[in-house]
Amino acid sequence: MIHPEVLDSMMPYLAGQYGNPSSIHRHGRMARKAVKKAREQVASLINAMPSEILITSGGTESNNTAILGVAAQNPSCHIITSSIEHDAVLEPCKMLSRKGFDVEYLPVDMFGMICQADLRAHITDRTRLVSVMFGNNEVGSIQPISELTSVCDEHKILFHTDAVQAVGKTHIDVRNLGVDLMSISSHKLHGPKGVGALFVRKGTHIDPMILGGGQERRMRSGTENVAGIVGFGQACEMARTGMRKNITYLQGLRDALIRGILEAVPAVTLNGDPVLRLAHNAHFTFLGVNGEDLIIKLDEYGVAASTGSACSVNVQKASHVLSAMGFSSEQIAGSLRLTVGMFNTIDEITQVTGILKDVVRELRAVSPFKEKYSFTE
Amino acid sequence: MIHPEVLDSMMPYLAGQYGNPSSIHRHGRMARKAVKKAREQVASLINAMPSEILITSGGTESNNTAILGVAAQNPSCHIITSSIEHDAVLEPCKMLSRKGFDVEYLPVDMFGMICQADLRAHITDRTRLVSVMFGNNEVGSIQPISELTSVCDEHKILFHTDAVQAVGKTHIDVRNLGVDLMSISSHKLHGPKGVGALFVRKGTHIDPMILGGGQERRMRSGTENVAGIVGFGQACEMARTGMRKNITYLQGLRDALIRGILEAVPAVTLNGDPVLRLAHNAHFTFLGVNGEDLIIKLDEYGVAASTGSACSVNVQKASHVLSAMGFSSEQIAGSLRLTVGMFNTIDEITQVTGILKDVVRELRAVSPFKEKYSFTE
Repeated sequence: MIHPEVLDSMMPYLAGQYGNPSSIHRHGRMARKAVKKAREQVASLINAMPSEILITSGGTESNNTAILGVAAQNPSCHIITSSIEHDAVLEPCKMLSRKGFDVEYLPVDMFGMICQADLRAHITDRTRLVSVMFGNNEVGSIQPISELTSVCDEHKILFHTDAVQAVGKTHIDVRNLGVDLMSISSHKLHGPKGVGALFVRKGTHIDPMILGGGQERRMRSGTENVAGIVGFGQACEMARTGMRKNITYLQGLRDALIRGILEAVPAVTLNGDPVLRLAHNAHFTFLGVNGEDLIIKLDEYGVAASTGSACSVNVQKASHVLSAMGFSSEQIAGSLRLTVGMFNTIDEITQVTGILKDVVRELRAVSPFKEKYSFTE
Repeated sequence: MIHPEVLDSMMPYLAGQYGNPSSIHRHGRMARKAVKKAREQVASLINAMPSEILITSGGTESNNTAILGVAAQNPSCHIITSSIEHDAVLEPCKMLSRKGFDVEYLPVDMFGMICQADLRAHITDRTRLVSVMFGNNEVGSIQPISELTSVCDEHKILFHTDAVQAVGKTHIDVRNLGVDLMSISSHKLHGPKGVGALFVRKGTHIDPMILGGGQERRMRSGTENVAGIVGFGQACEMARTGMRKNITYLQGLRDALIRGILEAVPAVTLNGDPVLRLAHNAHFTFLGVNGEDLIIKLDEYGVAASTGSACSVNVQKASHVLSAMGFSSEQIAGSLRLTVGMFNTIDEITQVTGILKDVVRELRAVSPFKEKYSFTE
């Protein structure tokens, strides 16, 4: 949800007289100033320059702009990505494959981690782009981005990272990381939906995707969504100033959740890297249970969980992330993501742990796999 | 600005608990229901089916999606557009030209009108798309869309219209018009910025532009901007139910403005078609005056005018629309667009007329063209 202070910052641009930032007149100037401030706030969160921030309609457009924007400048080149990316990276890559680009997918280990040596082994003299996500949206594993960018740097290959899940949940400094392109989404930071950004390092050239009036230094046309951009800026500002406290809080909740569930529920495993993981993410496999059934049961108790990416609409397919990690179809079916937010409390975590214990027991009692596992309860 | 009732409709999705419409759980279902209702409201305004409404981040993205989406399915085809389109149509067309597509631009007459015979003469057996705007954003002329679509229909050519300026300002029925693709923007209807739609007639196939999680029936990926979409829907609903009253009101104000200025100011001409024009648009040439100076002076009096498209950012170039209409550079320099809105009053029109009279006299007194025209005042 949108943080109340973020909404407060947006209200003058939603409720009041407001202008088109590209107009000469007074209302236009006010809007322009507000967008400028927001751009500085976004830049500041990731230690970028304001001129390196390209405002978009969200994380998906940012990912598309990065990948298709590099591709447009390098016809039929070789692109390396990973097997656990979000569809907003995988789908543009698949489209490029169909158009004659050579796209390869790095494997991951059982913790969902990519290794530097694998990347190095895949690079050819036609490689122009590597796109590896910062933190995985399903299992939460955080990739060794600096190690990967250092390899790309040696070979003068552009590096993009989808940091939609990671920004605000871990400290990110684009200078230290060495990334050339990085996608951010507003609503993952308690900002409004429908806005995001692409960090484009100074000197990095990509083709624009949406053409027209030439907004965003000709890199992204369309009348600026002033209220959304202002809210996004405010959300970034709050994420930056509250980062240390927020991460500590989220990690505290998450670790309580992980401990609680591993203790309370038999035959459960934690997925993803146990250490290098996003502060808000927990992901489990409950053997003998169907994740979909779990979600429906949890929903009855007011707990909003997910089997995978919420962005895989209307298509309940087996998680490509868990497949890449070597999970069996049975393990995938029993998997569940639980994320904690700044608005959750430790009491809620205790409740959820109790609810899960009961619900899993209930479902296992009628599970077709009951005999197979003979759960000790 | 956003209409207060539109903002009211958005508030639950800005301030409250809200979900990702693609999630299975309860908050997701609520959001999904709200988006469904909004889609019906958008469809209803233009007599489309809800399934023919593709939600985008705004008019520019809608135009890009239509043009690039058809182009992607018809490599190197012939595309016809007009010389007075918005940059959100012209720029994607220019990009396609650079990539080997054959793009031609229909001329306009001195009123900014395109004629059916011209379109017919330009069609070849390689023509796959015609894109002609509904109402011009600068001079307000409304094109004979039905006459143009009937030609395209004969040749089985797809027809797209940029109706961003026209929707809500004139009655639009996509069934009667015979268009295949039509762009709409929310903020032109007193909805929020950052959202719009593309009408895609059932059976019309285009490639998606933004790829990822498969939202919008796989035609436009990215987490749905629920609050923005809800506001857009409400704005369409209000435009539909208030259409007759609104148009009458706007036309009343506009006609008072036109009459007032033509009477009060010497050596002034009304541009664009005097009859077939958008209800809210007035466009004049004040000979011997610089339009930019006029805007700055008017701004001091609190009047927000424009020399052309607000979307031509930071680039004060001569209007391509006025050039296409055969205007001299001096006429172009002296041109000014004034639009009226639902929040304007007849008193304001009287004021503006008086202010313009004074400001034009003032500027002409110091005009380098003073001698040339020897203004009779």
